[in-house]
Amino acid sequence: MLDSNGRTLGYGRAGSGNPTASGIEGAAAAVLTAARRALRSDATPTDPKSSALIALAGSESAQFRHAVAALIGPLGFEGGVATEPDLAGMFFSGTFRQHGYGLIAGTGAVAARIEHGKLERVAGGAGWLLGDSGSGFWIGRRVLRAVTAAIDGLGPSTALTALVLGSLGLAADPGSDRANTNHANTTLANSTTANGAETSVQGRPRVLFELIDAVYALPPVQLARFAPLAFQAQTDAVARDILRGAATALSDLLATVHDPRRGGELVVGGSVLTAGLRDAPEIFGPPLAAVAPNATVLSVPDGLVGAAVLSLRHAGVAVDAALFSRLRADIARSAAAYTEEVETP
Amino acid sequence: MLDSNGRTLGYGRAGSGNPTASGIEGAAAAVLTAARRALRSDATPTDPKSSALIALAGSESAQFRHAVAALIGPLGFEGGVATEPDLAGMFFSGTFRQHGYGLIAGTGAVAARIEHGKLERVAGGAGWLLGDSGSGFWIGRRVLRAVTAAIDGLGPSTALTALVLGSLGLAADPGSDRANTNHANTTLANSTTANGAETSVQGRPRVLFELIDAVYALPPVQLARFAPLAFQAQTDAVARDILRGAATALSDLLATVHDPRRGGELVVGGSVLTAGLRDAPEIFGPPLAAVAPNATVLSVPDGLVGAAVLSLRHAGVAVDAALFSRLRADIARSAAAYTEEVETP
Repeated sequence: MLDSNGRTLGYGRAGSGNPTASGIEGAAAAVLTAARRALRSDATPTDPKSSALIALAGSESAQFRHAVAALIGPLGFEGGVATEPDLAGMFFSGTFRQHGYGLIAGTGAVAARIEHGKLERVAGGAGWLLGDSGSGFWIGRRVLRAVTAAIDGLGPSTALTALVLGSLGLAADPGSDRANTNHANTTLANSTTANGAETSVQGRPRVLFELIDAVYALPPVQLARFAPLAFQAQTDAVARDILRGAATALSDLLATVHDPRRGGELVVGGSVLTAGLRDAPEIFGPPLAAVAPNATVLSVPDGLVGAAVLSLRHAGVAVDAALFSRLRADIARSAAAYTEEVETP
Repeated sequence: MLDSNGRTLGYGRAGSGNPTASGIEGAAAAVLTAARRALRSDATPTDPKSSALIALAGSESAQFRHAVAALIGPLGFEGGVATEPDLAGMFFSGTFRQHGYGLIAGTGAVAARIEHGKLERVAGGAGWLLGDSGSGFWIGRRVLRAVTAAIDGLGPSTALTALVLGSLGLAADPGSDRANTNHANTTLANSTTANGAETSVQGRPRVLFELIDAVYALPPVQLARFAPLAFQAQTDAVARDILRGAATALSDLLATVHDPRRGGELVVGGSVLTAGLRDAPEIFGPPLAAVAPNATVLSVPDGLVGAAVLSLRHAGVAVDAALFSRLRADIARSAAAYTEEVETP
């Protein structure tokens, strides 16, 4: 909630507003909840002609805009509902400039070149089955495949095994990592430990079947939750290779949209890229710098400041450096206050 | 249906008998249908003490055995229902010998070393999310990712694009493959063709969104259906790389179970490996030969002969070379006759 001078009037948060992930009704309901929370100090927007702008993750559709307009109309938004891609929201959370690059790697991964304030060239974001190399899903899936391979004797032993089994509440048995066993020491068809517990079934460790059962019970996209384990184990050679692969994939993504003749800042965001540049900068920094050698890298936590920038621009307000800094500071303050309010009783 | 001399008395086929894929009830019903079809010439098994053996794909369980026993009991199988892994069925479809190797790559991929007639060491088969490198799913997913990347400008142009779009009934537009466009020639934010059709949306070709919608509408495991396109396009560099990667992954799988001190035949099966050794032998042959240099390679269409071998062995009958050849010939004849019967009115 902001006025036409860019002053923050209210701040609210709610669940997923992604109509592709949460359905049109669910996403619209989340937007209503967030709008209500933003308005709790003011009963209605100051100006009855207020409009709403959504920096939208997922597929844009007239249906979704109508659903949101119907729900938030009674709150006083008579100026309508506009949407912009979440990638634009992320980019303008980092800079007020009209040219530059955005690279986001969270559960998915996407990159864009921005020219004249618009997404001129976008690459990536094709989802977990078709694309998103270097994303949280991609890393999480590689972590789980590396652990499966280690337990199965197909791949090298890795510190990730204990982390993954621990995070799933599975106990590793002594025979659970066959990576380093030699042929003279293979598991027997059905072996038992001294106390009689069966540790292998049909020539394979029992924990392998437990891992398979646990992972296939998850929606595939949730494999992204195992990505942080790669950062946790980054001194391990297998984990490090996975992170290096992610850094390469993300720099390839940036290279696809990059035009060496056009400079501009590089706005980065998303859980993986944020963790990568903070916790493994020697892995994630150099490949990105090789693609965009002179770019200032700006890290953003989300697309909210950008949504405010785009909202003001839709209303015909020019956003310059001074207004942009005030927006950022105001929104950061509101976000911090909001968190405190929610967390203290 | 065979007697204790290994003579084929009846042959029947039905749908999926995999309780993991089709559910216990569905799989047991398929077994009943197949058993009824096998028995159509004889009202009941010759010997009331007949038993059933299932070379089972999917998870073995007492529940499944009980469900099958309850359904087929009235047909006269009083000797009970036994199961063996489908991998054992495949192996003994290729050889009567008690030692050797099996490598299967269909939708999934799995390998085993057989010793003393038992699966001594098994690797692979962890499913599409966790394993199965080199399988039909793995190839199909790579085919689709390569096409997505080519359309998105992330990867090289490939002959697979036209094959995939064609197989999904999607029309490639002139801007659908950006792999070879340079930076001076990027797609505009929203471009239209001469006749006004919108070919790009927010800086991306429209066909990319159509491809994404079509693929995510499929159950993931069905991505295996795109694997044959890699064989069809094998002179294309991208398709060839995918097939080479599959061949390497499958030879790694075999290497994991291989014991260089133990010889034995190599029984191969499954749609991918069958197509690989038949249609792209220069890609699939050498890596397997490098792992098991002196092994005779025996290709099998399914696990039926092996189920017969295992069934006889469960009944205490020794299967030697002569009996094995007769089994193979008998079953092949029955299968051929069965197909004719079904296909001619």
